[in-house]
Amino acid sequence: MKTDGAPSTSPPPPGLVANWETLQRIFIRPENEAARAVLLKYMEQILFGLHDFLKQHLGITQEASLKDLADRFTDSRIGEHPVRKLADVINGLIEEVAPHAVNVASPYFVGHMTSAIPFYMVHLATIVAALNQNPVKLETSKVVSVLERQVLAKIHRVVYGFDGGFYHRHIQKPESTLGGFVEDGTLANMTALWVARNTLLGAKPGFDGVEKEGMAAALAAHGILRCVVLVSRLGHYSLRKSAGVLGIGNRNVIPVPVDAGQRLDINALEETLRTLKRDEPGTRILAVVGVAGTTETGTVDPLEAMAGICEREKIHFHVDAAWGGPTLLSGTYRHLLKGIERADSATIDGHKQFYMPMSCGMVYFKNPTHMDAAAYHARYINRPGSVDLGIRSLVGSRAAASLVLGSALDIMGSRGYALLIDHGIELARSFAGEIMKRPLFQLVTPPCLNILTYRLLPEGTEADTETANRINKTVQRLQREAGRSFVSRTTLSLPETGETVVLRVVLMNPFTTIGILREILDEQETLYRREIAGRP
Amino acid sequence: MKTDGAPSTSPPPPGLVANWETLQRIFIRPENEAARAVLLKYMEQILFGLHDFLKQHLGITQEASLKDLADRFTDSRIGEHPVRKLADVINGLIEEVAPHAVNVASPYFVGHMTSAIPFYMVHLATIVAALNQNPVKLETSKVVSVLERQVLAKIHRVVYGFDGGFYHRHIQKPESTLGGFVEDGTLANMTALWVARNTLLGAKPGFDGVEKEGMAAALAAHGILRCVVLVSRLGHYSLRKSAGVLGIGNRNVIPVPVDAGQRLDINALEETLRTLKRDEPGTRILAVVGVAGTTETGTVDPLEAMAGICEREKIHFHVDAAWGGPTLLSGTYRHLLKGIERADSATIDGHKQFYMPMSCGMVYFKNPTHMDAAAYHARYINRPGSVDLGIRSLVGSRAAASLVLGSALDIMGSRGYALLIDHGIELARSFAGEIMKRPLFQLVTPPCLNILTYRLLPEGTEADTETANRINKTVQRLQREAGRSFVSRTTLSLPETGETVVLRVVLMNPFTTIGILREILDEQETLYRREIAGRP
Repeated sequence: MKTDGAPSTSPPPPGLVANWETLQRIFIRPENEAARAVLLKYMEQILFGLHDFLKQHLGITQEASLKDLADRFTDSRIGEHPVRKLADVINGLIEEVAPHAVNVASPYFVGHMTSAIPFYMVHLATIVAALNQNPVKLETSKVVSVLERQVLAKIHRVVYGFDGGFYHRHIQKPESTLGGFVEDGTLANMTALWVARNTLLGAKPGFDGVEKEGMAAALAAHGILRCVVLVSRLGHYSLRKSAGVLGIGNRNVIPVPVDAGQRLDINALEETLRTLKRDEPGTRILAVVGVAGTTETGTVDPLEAMAGICEREKIHFHVDAAWGGPTLLSGTYRHLLKGIERADSATIDGHKQFYMPMSCGMVYFKNPTHMDAAAYHARYINRPGSVDLGIRSLVGSRAAASLVLGSALDIMGSRGYALLIDHGIELARSFAGEIMKRPLFQLVTPPCLNILTYRLLPEGTEADTETANRINKTVQRLQREAGRSFVSRTTLSLPETGETVVLRVVLMNPFTTIGILREILDEQETLYRREIAGRP
Repeated sequence: MKTDGAPSTSPPPPGLVANWETLQRIFIRPENEAARAVLLKYMEQILFGLHDFLKQHLGITQEASLKDLADRFTDSRIGEHPVRKLADVINGLIEEVAPHAVNVASPYFVGHMTSAIPFYMVHLATIVAALNQNPVKLETSKVVSVLERQVLAKIHRVVYGFDGGFYHRHIQKPESTLGGFVEDGTLANMTALWVARNTLLGAKPGFDGVEKEGMAAALAAHGILRCVVLVSRLGHYSLRKSAGVLGIGNRNVIPVPVDAGQRLDINALEETLRTLKRDEPGTRILAVVGVAGTTETGTVDPLEAMAGICEREKIHFHVDAAWGGPTLLSGTYRHLLKGIERADSATIDGHKQFYMPMSCGMVYFKNPTHMDAAAYHARYINRPGSVDLGIRSLVGSRAAASLVLGSALDIMGSRGYALLIDHGIELARSFAGEIMKRPLFQLVTPPCLNILTYRLLPEGTEADTETANRINKTVQRLQREAGRSFVSRTTLSLPETGETVVLRVVLMNPFTTIGILREILDEQETLYRREIAGRP
């Protein structure tokens, strides 16, 4: 991109004049064949030029230090005149930006929850932009709001599995809210805790509810000192952020220990509840959160047992299935999430295992009136009784991501998604076997879904976590910098080794094979021997 | 769309089988010319088919009752097998969905803040989807994070206008946060109030800050009873929602009266501050919010005077310029927002007057370390000291909207945007003149920017607001249902007429002309005479 903008008094570059006529032209899709052909040519570049370019530049990203890149983007001035035409902007994005972006579609990119997406997703995203509907209100979306309700009902049914009559009643009933689209999983979790907070600290005689009166007044009115949220130590950081934002206080997200399988320890949960009841009569449990696919280890908490406890104690049970949710479409592995159907609310991300482009978070509620606890109206939209979807939503204006998801469900069928899910889980199991076969490596957390962690553990470092940590940090960094493949790293608190640096692999790309994973291990071995052990 | 899903035991429709081979194919952009041509053909349909179809079906939306539409989308089952191919999905969206969506690009659609967008925006949105970067962290975005920082600095400079040295220091400095991208203006306002809350109720000896300990503990530690936010009565409902979410309590958003020009009444603000100080020693002002382009009337609050008060009283001054922000790019009208450069924070929406597709909210902070008050870390990303943009952000995963805005700034130059802004403002002034010339109409709020409100006020109803309200509600509904053009309606509290229903016009489409606006008035006159007055 431009690194030194023209001062605003300079003449416009040749051919780049902003005047009313050229401006108007860019708002119309042209009528004549020649102009249409040009616009289509641009799309061809975007669809295939980008792809071809990346194919020639194998690997995750081109070598360039962050410092070097940052130095190219230091001009903060907006030129008065246009700086480049669309054609040059597209070329620039393909030739200058793409090579230094991250090729998340590479089958060697197995470090994060972002992967290749089906090519048709790009077409669907284009339609969303071209229609440019805003589902906050019917007046800027009409049928799209109706269609969104259908998509929400379809996913709700996957999660909760109520009978046809239930969905027939609620699917298009303006007063019912089966769920909602928000930007991402963070906002979905925040929405769930927002609704749980407002329900727990609702109105009562002399008190208008926490949403109106605030947290301090709410605690006073309900005679309590603090609210807490209980979640496994491996819960996503968005839960702490949500508690901070919601005025609950992020220290009131209490981490519950995990068992050897990195799942919330159900005895520890019971013990925490007992202790709180006994020692802190002023403390109320706002929610218990089960994780269906923790970010770091991909493990699924014991949802059934947690649901039982929450039902017994009348506590809001939220399941963060941002990652694992689509596993429900797999006949083979659906059982791993058993118990989610008893959750009061659930988070699922579309841009993760629904393979949608960024960004699509979703939150679902078992009870279609639960979200009434967080309804807002205005005088020009979202009037009481209207069908505007913005009435019950943390966000206002947003893109119609439901068009993408709804279409993808039609194109893939549940079986299409099931094949992808099954591939990831089964590949993770094979990979775990491969790791266990190699003496240099230690499998740290075996896969529950399609995520696992492991580490290099050279002979003699077994009792020296500090050294092992340093080795794993270094190898991960060297591999990332080499740019051929990418695994991520995190730090787990483990009973035997304490704070332990591990390498983390997320397997969702259908082109990632056991062969590729072996190459990645080979590279790590080589990097270790060459750069650390100092022998070839 | 499908209205009756096949039960999951039925055989797949011919040609629609999800198996591993077909699945893998949809993840690859094809290499051979024929397959590429097909994919490109789909894009052609999206780019032009949609356009041509809408051209044949003039108007805002096709006639169909909401009930009828809702009845078409009542199947909540996901088929096991694929239901349709991409080609049919695209056809379906163009032929079945688009006609019942809202043609927000029509120059007759002047009722909301959504309009035609330049065609290249669709190309840019396609690039964002194809690259599929996630700017929450460097490891899934790399150069895109760097580029985003540049775009943020460019807009920050438009708002705050610090010198080149300032931007040189902060533009790529990981510790500095000039602003951030979030889903929409609601989340931008929420972010600003979140940061203001955390700053006001920060840590002190014996207290770890509101973010950690929650609102109740914070008020106790700081020895206060409640926090309030002051904003004009015309402030956006997202401010109430934000206060509700943040645990402040939405009743603590105190509406300040407006003057005859629908701008916050500065004397009333002073009076409110005096009264609170005198009568409520336990109340603290968390923020004063100035609106630069109210949603309902487009008016701009007296930002200079408000900034002066906030500086004197050491109160966080936030400006909600979701709508009006881009006016700063117009040399002619920039002065209308004078004072915004003294705001501690400001909201601007990209999907409004930057003419971006849904959805792009932005929040800016004058002080590049202000957002430290809301920083979050995790063990696998956003580590302390990293350049991950997710550290200081209300949301986590998100699309790289900065690629669209940065490219648009290059293509348009500030002058391109200025021409659009100027057109809207000047057209609104002409339209106000036209309304005043017609005896059936009353101009209620003259335009400050490019929004105005007016109403039908037939002879004899001047003193009868109830009747006038009914007439305006009816005419607005009839016109919307007729589907040729669309103005919105809202209810203003006016000193002389009380709760007054008005028609609201938002002028941002470059193809909306005074001629079109006259037609809209003509249609309203006709509807009134035919349907209400009962004479031709």
